[in-house]
Amino acid sequence: MDSHTVGVLGGGQLGRMLVEAAHRLNIKVAILDSENAPAKQINQIAAAAHITGSFANAEDVRHFAAKADVLTYEIEHVDTQVLEALDSESPFVEDSQSWRRIQPSWRTIRQIQDKFVQKQHFAENGIPTADSKGVGTTSPQGLKEIGLELGGLPIMLKARTQAYDGRGNYPIMNLSDIEPALRALADRPLYAERWASFKKELAVMVVKTKQEANVDTYEQITLPFPVTETIHTDSICKLTFTPPRGVPIKIQRQAQDLARKAVASFEGTGVFGVELFLLEDDSIIVNEIAPRPHNSGHYTIEACHMSQYEAHLRAILPGLADTIEPGATDLAVNAAVMLNILGGPEPNSHLLVAKAALKVPGAKIHLYGKGDGRPGRKMGHITIVGKSMSEVERKIHPLIITADSVRAHKHSERTSDEAIQATADELLKLNPAPPEKPLLAIVMGSDTDLATLRPGLELLDKMPIPYLVTITSAHRTPQHMLNFGKAAASRGFKAIVAAAGGAAHLPGMMASETTVPVIGCPVKASSMDGLDSLFAIVQMPRGIPVATVGIANSTNAILLAARIIGTSEPKVQEWLAAHLQQMDDENMAKAARLESEGWQTYKKLDQAMPLSFK
Amino acid sequence: MDSHTVGVLGGGQLGRMLVEAAHRLNIKVAILDSENAPAKQINQIAAAAHITGSFANAEDVRHFAAKADVLTYEIEHVDTQVLEALDSESPFVEDSQSWRRIQPSWRTIRQIQDKFVQKQHFAENGIPTADSKGVGTTSPQGLKEIGLELGGLPIMLKARTQAYDGRGNYPIMNLSDIEPALRALADRPLYAERWASFKKELAVMVVKTKQEANVDTYEQITLPFPVTETIHTDSICKLTFTPPRGVPIKIQRQAQDLARKAVASFEGTGVFGVELFLLEDDSIIVNEIAPRPHNSGHYTIEACHMSQYEAHLRAILPGLADTIEPGATDLAVNAAVMLNILGGPEPNSHLLVAKAALKVPGAKIHLYGKGDGRPGRKMGHITIVGKSMSEVERKIHPLIITADSVRAHKHSERTSDEAIQATADELLKLNPAPPEKPLLAIVMGSDTDLATLRPGLELLDKMPIPYLVTITSAHRTPQHMLNFGKAAASRGFKAIVAAAGGAAHLPGMMASETTVPVIGCPVKASSMDGLDSLFAIVQMPRGIPVATVGIANSTNAILLAARIIGTSEPKVQEWLAAHLQQMDDENMAKAARLESEGWQTYKKLDQAMPLSFK
Repeated sequence: MDSHTVGVLGGGQLGRMLVEAAHRLNIKVAILDSENAPAKQINQIAAAAHITGSFANAEDVRHFAAKADVLTYEIEHVDTQVLEALDSESPFVEDSQSWRRIQPSWRTIRQIQDKFVQKQHFAENGIPTADSKGVGTTSPQGLKEIGLELGGLPIMLKARTQAYDGRGNYPIMNLSDIEPALRALADRPLYAERWASFKKELAVMVVKTKQEANVDTYEQITLPFPVTETIHTDSICKLTFTPPRGVPIKIQRQAQDLARKAVASFEGTGVFGVELFLLEDDSIIVNEIAPRPHNSGHYTIEACHMSQYEAHLRAILPGLADTIEPGATDLAVNAAVMLNILGGPEPNSHLLVAKAALKVPGAKIHLYGKGDGRPGRKMGHITIVGKSMSEVERKIHPLIITADSVRAHKHSERTSDEAIQATADELLKLNPAPPEKPLLAIVMGSDTDLATLRPGLELLDKMPIPYLVTITSAHRTPQHMLNFGKAAASRGFKAIVAAAGGAAHLPGMMASETTVPVIGCPVKASSMDGLDSLFAIVQMPRGIPVATVGIANSTNAILLAARIIGTSEPKVQEWLAAHLQQMDDENMAKAARLESEGWQTYKKLDQAMPLSFK
Repeated sequence: MDSHTVGVLGGGQLGRMLVEAAHRLNIKVAILDSENAPAKQINQIAAAAHITGSFANAEDVRHFAAKADVLTYEIEHVDTQVLEALDSESPFVEDSQSWRRIQPSWRTIRQIQDKFVQKQHFAENGIPTADSKGVGTTSPQGLKEIGLELGGLPIMLKARTQAYDGRGNYPIMNLSDIEPALRALADRPLYAERWASFKKELAVMVVKTKQEANVDTYEQITLPFPVTETIHTDSICKLTFTPPRGVPIKIQRQAQDLARKAVASFEGTGVFGVELFLLEDDSIIVNEIAPRPHNSGHYTIEACHMSQYEAHLRAILPGLADTIEPGATDLAVNAAVMLNILGGPEPNSHLLVAKAALKVPGAKIHLYGKGDGRPGRKMGHITIVGKSMSEVERKIHPLIITADSVRAHKHSERTSDEAIQATADELLKLNPAPPEKPLLAIVMGSDTDLATLRPGLELLDKMPIPYLVTITSAHRTPQHMLNFGKAAASRGFKAIVAAAGGAAHLPGMMASETTVPVIGCPVKASSMDGLDSLFAIVQMPRGIPVATVGIANSTNAILLAARIIGTSEPKVQEWLAAHLQQMDDENMAKAARLESEGWQTYKKLDQAMPLSFK
């Protein structure tokens, strides 16, 4: 597909997944890392080009660079001096005089390596981020003053370099934390950051396909992957949920735009991982950025049309960067969850999580070939994709419990798998998997409407549809009703059946607050034989539709809901087709019986017939 | 995950994809094949265990077997004598005295290798397959008589062994084909098969998790992957579509059951590929079976919860076979298409297809690392998954054209990429991609109803929904109307808006023939101000629902359809949410204007307001 050899500085799990993507495209990748590094294990074809050494060692990098046409990174802790020198010696790919050999640029790596420089870079480029100050002092009084300049405590004291997975961060919640913080991070270059009070951590992978750094043209030079919600424990990424739960699409678009602008501000091509904070006021700031594929983008392997690894490879190669079309980075599924498998107390404790995953249909296991586990070491991950967030949340639940149990034992000595499993079993009892989320809501204004709904509900019980039946009145609990409508789409309802009689406002009012289809079932009230209810439900103003069924015909209300759900749930459509056929068969049988028995004896038997056209 | 080393006889593309799956599970796989075979290229960790040699050579197999705990195949043309001997020397996996080392059994391979024996085996086990007769004769007269015994010409003359991708098959359409057929297949053991007049070729991958051969317990010892439709050109698999297009679910279930029974009749575990014919009368017969992952199962990598490769590895390992739960082999997407990339006239001609795929968002490229292409050689494949068959058909279309163009040139000498591309450009002009299939149908009984539908249609034109508007009358074209309804679900419609006035039978009759939600829009006819239409539409019998909107309110009919489609199309739901917000904003603006301008001057301006609550 492409004849260039890609040299990757670092051969951990990110390198391994880059190699995996490269194999599918038949692109040659060479690795600079220790012998038997995860990325090397799965790459025999480039064995001759691998170098055993360190990406942090200038001589090794120089030696390695001679074997690769394009150089890139799977880790940013590299020696940028030697990269700068290599770039000035031979800046371009030999057969493509317009394409830089080192992608993204060593300047980008240098800016990102020093987190304080990174923050200043964002500020200069108009990218919102937490205010920060360099810490030149080692005196508590000096740091206290910096804290005051940042608006007072709490603040976060951070090492400027060599910090990852929370190492190098020290939160200063009150004055007594200042001295221990300075001691903990002694001898390192430091900076202090204003405390970001976020309600969610988000991440966006962005692929940059042009060399130039230009925030203004971010729409031309970058494409975003979906927004993902990240959950950290002990400062290490534990889970990602895509799309982020409970984050409106408008805010997701804002997050993608901000991430693209942040990435557009750096030189060179490739995938960048952008960590964001969603603040209490719904504004978004950039936390930090990684100039490479990122843990929070693992989900893209199964969930997106193109993985972050393929995107990175294509973006750094001269002939392929321009082939990445809009849409390529989109989700191919409705929901995805990723769980990191971290090392536990024993070398193989983490395998408990992978083994539990074997039993979960749809759990995609990725083990990195790292050998022995250590507490907190990233040994693998699991991705589950599905039709809904509710589905993937339910499937991942027992695996989170197992991972939590491994973590709970991480400092124990000689912990058997059985002990960890016992913890998991106990936790699962305390915290069982959430029930399947309902796809259909049936609401009524008063419990007197239940009699009308009963035939429909009895039929519903035979269908493969999880549902919720509740009471909410347009007149007695108007606010509750509006709130129910507002939340309906994000709760995952695909239809709402609303029954009401008389003035019958419930279906129409519910429909005013949601984009979910509302089915109105007119109940016969005290007068007019239900005609009042029918008109109150069906004659909605233009703009707000209610799907109205016949007076008191709850069977049809439920069947209509099933038809709606069946448009995206093949099992439900299959049930409905069988039901149509059954009604057909029943009616033909009735006809045959009526013809053969005569009308005189027919009536009694009719009572025995199930459902449908009675 | 598992400490056993899996030895694979053969290291082509199937072996390569097995290795890929093994890496994710951290399972060690060793390969017996020539140096630099595709599977070895991506497997450094087992390099020491690989053997350079042939899976058909007994000595090589014996030498290789010593290095592996479990032996399996990626090709059935292996020496079963040596496998039989190995099995009698050490039948079980060393640390698991109940698990056979050779999976599936050498007996299974031997039965399948000889296609006539395979057919007889099916017949003995009650598996429907084409009638066949061994051909002991080399005389045309003898073959003619066999043809008569099989019910007359046409028949298919087939080599019993070493036949694949159509090589070894010779169709005898009439008497004059007999002599050339015998010449073409001279010196090979032959059999003759009754001609199967099929309307579709299907395939089902089946994973078998127990050692025993028992057709009766097929539900306990096998799990099926989805049914896939295979398209062959020049007897080589060209495309697969999953689920199969236009095949009712009932028939798909029958195909899966038949495939499971066929596989259950063989000894040992692993994945089997079952090729089926769907005959003109909707019955299904088994064509042939492969005791390994299969070309027609490549799609499972992206489309199913578990790939056929992972399923094979897990099924052959003692500790993992029982972890494959029902559901694990299901589709995780709605539709998938797979296109084989075959070699063309020049060593790299096939890369044209892969390069075209780079431009198609969602096209997953797999190149096998086979080096130079030759006409017809399988060099790679492309899989596209999506929300609907229509979507994946449109996306794959230009790639099929490119593949066809490579094939059209396959026997040309020195054909440049430009010449092939020119052919592709021309073909694409003659045969452009099919238009996006409509998700919404709007039907009316007469063109006089168009006036009522117009406001809704004008709004629909602003929505991201492909649609069809047509005329079909319950009374003037009843059969056409019923046919339209019958085909609606398989055409991919997610909603039907039906407008009718007066007796207004159209919506209800349409709803009687489909599981797709039907929205009824009552048109004001000559009398009763539309009340007659409303009642005729809304008061349906129990069992057949019509979603009825207000009299002449086509805007709401379309908005309701959009809400239904929005339950599975996030873009549509996003549009609707913005539209709700816009209506809210407009109304608030009107309120503000009315308050500030006073009611006296208000009316004129109202005309300028767009859509919604006028």
